Amino acid sequence: MAKLQLGVLGSGSGSNMQSIVDAIEAGRLDAEIKVVLADVPDAKILERARRHGIPCQFLDCSPWKTKLADAAELDCIRILREAGVDTVVLAGFMRIVKSALLEAYPGRVINIHPALLPAFPGIRSWQQALDYGCKLAGVTVHFVDAGTDSGPIIVQKAVEVREDDTPETLHARIQVQEHLAYPEALSIIASGRYRIEGRRVRIG
Amino acid sequence: MAKLQLGVLGSGSGSNMQSIVDAIEAGRLDAEIKVVLADVPDAKILERARRHGIPCQFLDCSPWKTKLADAAELDCIRILREAGVDTVVLAGFMRIVKSALLEAYPGRVINIHPALLPAFPGIRSWQQALDYGCKLAGVTVHFVDAGTDSGPIIVQKAVEVREDDTPETLHARIQVQEHLAYPEALSIIASGRYRIEGRRVRIG
Repeated sequence: MAKLQLGVLGSGSGSNMQSIVDAIEAGRLDAEIKVVLADVPDAKILERARRHGIPCQFLDCSPWKTKLADAAELDCIRILREAGVDTVVLAGFMRIVKSALLEAYPGRVINIHPALLPAFPGIRSWQQALDYGCKLAGVTVHFVDAGTDSGPIIVQKAVEVREDDTPETLHARIQVQEHLAYPEALSIIASGRYRIEGRRVRIG
Repeated sequence: MAKLQLGVLGSGSGSNMQSIVDAIEAGRLDAEIKVVLADVPDAKILERARRHGIPCQFLDCSPWKTKLADAAELDCIRILREAGVDTVVLAGFMRIVKSALLEAYPGRVINIHPALLPAFPGIRSWQQALDYGCKLAGVTVHFVDAGTDSGPIIVQKAVEVREDDTPETLHARIQVQEHLAYPEALSIIASGRYRIEGRRVRIG
């Protein structure tokens, strides 16, 4: 299979992007990050990208706070295409992507969610799991579809909830698993050895 | 703490009851099963109970198929009380228990559900997890409240979904974890070392 040509969209620290960079540099993932886009001008993910010599830029999504405006989405697609991206990686991107991006990259937009979906879609899912009283939390990497955190699942990993967990300590342990799960899921995609049957991602 | 005095309600093979009997006999659980009730006259759980010398009987719940009729529920409570039961264990009991039983045994009715709740409440949850395309399934032991599979969680265990899993193979692996989880949860209750804060069961 050809090397994955990744475009990464983020809003925050970029620790998931870092885990992908690390996996690529360690030879565990046959991919290249072609461009990093952030909807927050001073997001740390941009700083990380620059440090690794990865092309990156701010994507102006104003005036919206939680979705991609049509113009910004078209801009985003244009930048991804010009960079030669074949697979779009959402890495802490705090906006709902819409149909134009999904149509531009059918079956090639991937997201990571800090919960064992279908439990706890939406925001601060680690807090939701804690409030629910779950003894297991976790992380899910999935293909993005038109719903919220609802697409076919590639990888899930469980994280034990400890008696003394706060939202912060639980979130930190979930992030450790995120950094394993995302490169693992992208490796599956890079291998090409999967097919989607209904909602099931059949691997191997 | 005093030894748990268990009443077990079942409808089927009684493999969860067997795991509790085994844990008691191995000295891993400080409990005694005082009575076993089944709503199916020839349920294998009754045969198992007899084999271990545990008092047991058929609980006639007709004409209802999926709930406990008022008369049957009062009958059930009377039998449990007469047997000296302090903790009610639902072990594959295919009926919704109602408020009379919950009021008779407040905070002392326990259920096991073959899914990582809150995902996949209801029936054939292993099939639901497979159809959803989950990569992790599991089991939850919880206190019973007025909802369906919604009470505070005592123990959860994850089970990997394999690529070649059928509903039957996945269910079989979930049952292995059920048989670990139920004695473990009852040991926590027997120890008395827990408290319920909101929805969280704080152990230790």
